[in-house]
Amino acid sequence: MTIRGAPLIGQAAGWGLYLDLAKVKKDKDWSRVFKNSMEILAASRPTGRNLKAALEKLDLSLHQTPIPLKARQARLYKLLRIQEEEWETITKKIAQLGATLLKPNSNVLTICNTGRLATLGRGTAFAIIEEAFRQGKLRHAYALETRPYLQGLRLTAWELKQAKIPHTVITDGMTAHLFANKKIGAFFAGCDRVAANGDTANKIGTHNAALVAQAFKVPVYIACPKENIDPNIASGDKIPIEERSSDEVTVISGKRLAPKGTSAWHPAFDVTPHQLISGIITEEGIWRPNKSKVR
Amino acid sequence: MTIRGAPLIGQAAGWGLYLDLAKVKKDKDWSRVFKNSMEILAASRPTGRNLKAALEKLDLSLHQTPIPLKARQARLYKLLRIQEEEWETITKKIAQLGATLLKPNSNVLTICNTGRLATLGRGTAFAIIEEAFRQGKLRHAYALETRPYLQGLRLTAWELKQAKIPHTVITDGMTAHLFANKKIGAFFAGCDRVAANGDTANKIGTHNAALVAQAFKVPVYIACPKENIDPNIASGDKIPIEERSSDEVTVISGKRLAPKGTSAWHPAFDVTPHQLISGIITEEGIWRPNKSKVR
Repeated sequence: MTIRGAPLIGQAAGWGLYLDLAKVKKDKDWSRVFKNSMEILAASRPTGRNLKAALEKLDLSLHQTPIPLKARQARLYKLLRIQEEEWETITKKIAQLGATLLKPNSNVLTICNTGRLATLGRGTAFAIIEEAFRQGKLRHAYALETRPYLQGLRLTAWELKQAKIPHTVITDGMTAHLFANKKIGAFFAGCDRVAANGDTANKIGTHNAALVAQAFKVPVYIACPKENIDPNIASGDKIPIEERSSDEVTVISGKRLAPKGTSAWHPAFDVTPHQLISGIITEEGIWRPNKSKVR
Repeated sequence: MTIRGAPLIGQAAGWGLYLDLAKVKKDKDWSRVFKNSMEILAASRPTGRNLKAALEKLDLSLHQTPIPLKARQARLYKLLRIQEEEWETITKKIAQLGATLLKPNSNVLTICNTGRLATLGRGTAFAIIEEAFRQGKLRHAYALETRPYLQGLRLTAWELKQAKIPHTVITDGMTAHLFANKKIGAFFAGCDRVAANGDTANKIGTHNAALVAQAFKVPVYIACPKENIDPNIASGDKIPIEERSSDEVTVISGKRLAPKGTSAWHPAFDVTPHQLISGIITEEGIWRPNKSKVR
């Protein structure tokens, strides 16, 4: 959890691979180190798509044509740098596309942390909010605190503050009360992985907020690069959901708040069914999975 | 927040009144002290019904017939003791009625804290869960941690543990994921005030969980004494909702987790519309507000 946010995890894994392979002195050691490093990194977090997407892309690019060891190491470095540049372009497009979905003077809700602290480039859902603010369309951003890790309270609030965007944090249970009392234009979330039918795995609480948004006719938008869409997974029930330690719920800032003997359930992600999603905003356009056939 | 839980607040106010009036030495001072004490106590928390109900009942009982000062003080003491006994009977009835709503081998969800730490007698929603467990009908209880005060994580978990009921805490955002993955028989909540049409004010997060429960066809039950139903308030939008300090969200266990300059919204309660409520369980029976005419 030192590095978090599916896109950033993907890129960090790429740099991990680079650091391992930069140590290789003899060509004959390359394959063993490469395979070992890939296995460890790919298994580190199961839910997000970017981790495997990033590693697969590097694997393919590195092994297209046989080149000497030093050139291979240099190519890996360059590929990672290019990837960082590409994300700037991708997230700029996502931001611009997403901002078109908001009417002037809108309030929005977001979950978890999806800005530069969690991704490469401008971020995903956060980039849309920032772009809408830049265009003068955004009145106020509400950030779900996003228990148990409180990424909303700690990180998104910080990013909103840095961007000078008027904002308020709410607890995850306040969503219905928010929608019942304030006019909210949209709920924007990032994602860890999208199944081929549009079902979306994202931070725990997204499904909850999306259901409540639907009850109040507030559109739910997912923002992510196209690489987050996993064509190999037909529907959300096939996305592996990482379960993390109970202590991450029961202990806050080092202090145990639950009685001894009580444990908590800690699925780190949930799956929002595609029927609840008004649009998935990628650099290539807005996909409306609840109106389209299964890809 | 040293004393919390609408029923317990009502009784504590009664004892506060007693303590003030026990100091009165001369009959001529009674009215002034009584009026002053009533005003302060009645204004201390706006949302819960029990506070005003308890004070009004004491006011009525004390001033029915003129009696000497000492007798009046003694009567107040006795009335408060009787009230505590009555709650044992009332909550026993609520527990038994509520338990009939569960099928054998049920899992349930609950919010906030509704046992003896929050009420008189056995509690409200908690008493039902405990009774169902005693009858062998309950498999597992899930407790919403109930941010920002974490009454579920800190208090309900403790009460469940004391009662040896198998339980797990979840964060407020996990509700949809819980219902999607585990079979939940019912969502039981207490309440602070019920309007005449059945709209129910309860701990922030109740509306949220009720909406999600409805989406998964899980029945939502409110448990409370009949006194919580306020015939003077036609619908939930007329119930005053207490808003508390932002710091109670941004600071946990004395540590500020939000960046400086970020504030949080902190409505302490929300209103669940009667359409989402399958039944309101009182000592007099189960009222189904979504199927009945407005009383």
